[in-house]
Amino acid sequence: MPNFAERMKAMEKSAGIIRNLFGAMNDPSLISFGGGAPAKEALPIDIVREISNDVMTVGKRGVEALQYGSVMGLPDLREVVVSELLAPKGIDAKAENILVTSGGLEGINLLCQLYIDPGDVILVESPTFVHCVEIFEMFQAKCISVVMDDNGMVTEDLEEKIRQYNPKIVYVIPTFHNPTGRTLSLERRKRIAELGSRYDVVILEDDPYRDIRYSGSELKPIKAFDKTGHTVLANSFSKIFSPGSRLGYVLASDEVSAKLFDAKTATNSHTSMLPQVICAEFFKRGYYPAHHKMICDLYRERRDTMIECIDRFFPEGTKRTFPDGGLFTWAELPGGLNTTDLLVEATSNPAVKVAFVAGEGFFIEGGGMGNNCMRISFGSVTPEKIRIGAEKLGRLIRSRLE
Amino acid sequence: MPNFAERMKAMEKSAGIIRNLFGAMNDPSLISFGGGAPAKEALPIDIVREISNDVMTVGKRGVEALQYGSVMGLPDLREVVVSELLAPKGIDAKAENILVTSGGLEGINLLCQLYIDPGDVILVESPTFVHCVEIFEMFQAKCISVVMDDNGMVTEDLEEKIRQYNPKIVYVIPTFHNPTGRTLSLERRKRIAELGSRYDVVILEDDPYRDIRYSGSELKPIKAFDKTGHTVLANSFSKIFSPGSRLGYVLASDEVSAKLFDAKTATNSHTSMLPQVICAEFFKRGYYPAHHKMICDLYRERRDTMIECIDRFFPEGTKRTFPDGGLFTWAELPGGLNTTDLLVEATSNPAVKVAFVAGEGFFIEGGGMGNNCMRISFGSVTPEKIRIGAEKLGRLIRSRLE
Repeated sequence: MPNFAERMKAMEKSAGIIRNLFGAMNDPSLISFGGGAPAKEALPIDIVREISNDVMTVGKRGVEALQYGSVMGLPDLREVVVSELLAPKGIDAKAENILVTSGGLEGINLLCQLYIDPGDVILVESPTFVHCVEIFEMFQAKCISVVMDDNGMVTEDLEEKIRQYNPKIVYVIPTFHNPTGRTLSLERRKRIAELGSRYDVVILEDDPYRDIRYSGSELKPIKAFDKTGHTVLANSFSKIFSPGSRLGYVLASDEVSAKLFDAKTATNSHTSMLPQVICAEFFKRGYYPAHHKMICDLYRERRDTMIECIDRFFPEGTKRTFPDGGLFTWAELPGGLNTTDLLVEATSNPAVKVAFVAGEGFFIEGGGMGNNCMRISFGSVTPEKIRIGAEKLGRLIRSRLE
Repeated sequence: MPNFAERMKAMEKSAGIIRNLFGAMNDPSLISFGGGAPAKEALPIDIVREISNDVMTVGKRGVEALQYGSVMGLPDLREVVVSELLAPKGIDAKAENILVTSGGLEGINLLCQLYIDPGDVILVESPTFVHCVEIFEMFQAKCISVVMDDNGMVTEDLEEKIRQYNPKIVYVIPTFHNPTGRTLSLERRKRIAELGSRYDVVILEDDPYRDIRYSGSELKPIKAFDKTGHTVLANSFSKIFSPGSRLGYVLASDEVSAKLFDAKTATNSHTSMLPQVICAEFFKRGYYPAHHKMICDLYRERRDTMIECIDRFFPEGTKRTFPDGGLFTWAELPGGLNTTDLLVEATSNPAVKVAFVAGEGFFIEGGGMGNNCMRISFGSVTPEKIRIGAEKLGRLIRSRLE
């Protein structure tokens, strides 16, 4: 066969990490704090059945749901994004500037289509979401990391790196960050929007967790502070509606939206219509507020249980974040423990059988960065199993320190 | 804002053609022979409602339909592809080698991700499907055209061009070709598979219309003659199930499938689950054979009406193809008429109000190639309206020759 394109070699490292990290996690005998999937109890199955049963007729939305649709997405879903998801966050947007994507990650892919030539620099948080690094590497971008602290990306380091590397894109997950659960402070949100404008850099704001907040107060998105169109907001319906539906959206300026139209056309023409119709009706029929309250209550209990169990069962010297929302906490273990080794034992030892994601895969720097860290997901595990799993995992960790 | 990537400039020409050709065709006062959409009567709306009403519960497939799924696609949909769509065509495939894509075009996009570096050559038919040219240009491929005749791509010219240009991919639409409606002969199918193997070139077989045949006898796909894995089959559920569902599939060798896994992950993680579950059930519950017969009967009548009307109302000297299936015929007008000019009058003159697609956009060669040609779609227009529209269009064309 002919040689594969250069981009396929460029992405081998992160693609391999993803296959290794996430591949073996579906063993049903495990308690898995690994994957980032929502709880199955948080999926609006009955509502979807009811809506689909009602609209799937020729006189209602049956034709629309199965026929070709428009590249930018279903008009009333784009209106829903504007009125239900953006206006309440202080973003004044027009539906024409919304592109409906096949999941949030596709928005990241399309922004790379628009901007990234091989060798272009993308600045990312350290650590960052490894799936997006895989996308960036497929586009043969050079990823450079920016320091984080408990308030998210450190803007002084960001400005220095912008000056030094002249990046095309700065990639930020501002709210309940994946993998750490941290949230970018208000001051830094303003500052990042300004830096994008001042240095002519695209700020790619990836904010899929922002709407599942269990404590603390709302912060406006970076996009709310953007005066020049340099910030592009990519978001997802995965955490508030359904991940399997693969629905997301991008909010961008007129100029960028016009190019997104071309890139989306040449990727897959448009996003699947049936999920778009059902999701639009889910919001328009007023199901969202009660569903949203239900899932936040569900996840809040799981987060609280997980934090309580880590504090109780993990060894002294463990550092962990307290996420005000989202699906993850991040733990840093004491005593030079290596979490990649630990994971092998945690998943294979019959007395443990607990999975998590080892930290080092989230650091593009390599060289052992994050090898005492772990991402711990609490979203898809019941409180009872969180207690059992965290106790077993804590016992294993403590035994390694003895 | 920062400069767009080189690929966005490379695709400007074909993206502009697509926006112009297809953009203004949705005026409901037109009779449109323009777009390539299936008939709304061919959409299985009631079946989809019934299936979704039955499976969308926690005990059945509700969780699966809304939760994250696997990158390669829903296992039973991949089994359906193998047993219902490939085995009957003489292709012996394994479900592991099927990737479910978000529509047929996404398969083309992913093959380009795998193989195309900027400047690589792709050989295409002359004329060819302009949407795919847009994809190829986004990947900064150099498209070179291969001569067609009534039996499809001329394999002598193909071999010569392979030797001359050393292409990575040969892109072929073998059955009821878009835009011409022509079908590649059996002899040439075998020959193209052989040429792929002999010259180490990927044969990208795009075959979305093959299952809607109204006359003539079945021909095996090129893939059925492939002994080395050089032929990759991309297909779509758009014409046999629903285009808005955006479901397609790619059949490739183990090596290529492994890379497709990576490219799909970094494009949009996986294809939307709800349409996959419903489509799998559509086949597994045995709805397909009767639905297939219904749509073939529907389209056969429309094709016969269109051919009859072209022969009756278009001027002497018009050449047209007789498609044994698919959605298009292709007409070549006499007397040096320019179809791009004609389209302006046909759509704006209140006495006509008929749309088609002007031919020249389908020729990558430019320089006026195909400017007396038109693609005429009959799929989404009722026989009554086909008669009215073809008569009006024929009258306009004849008036231009006087």
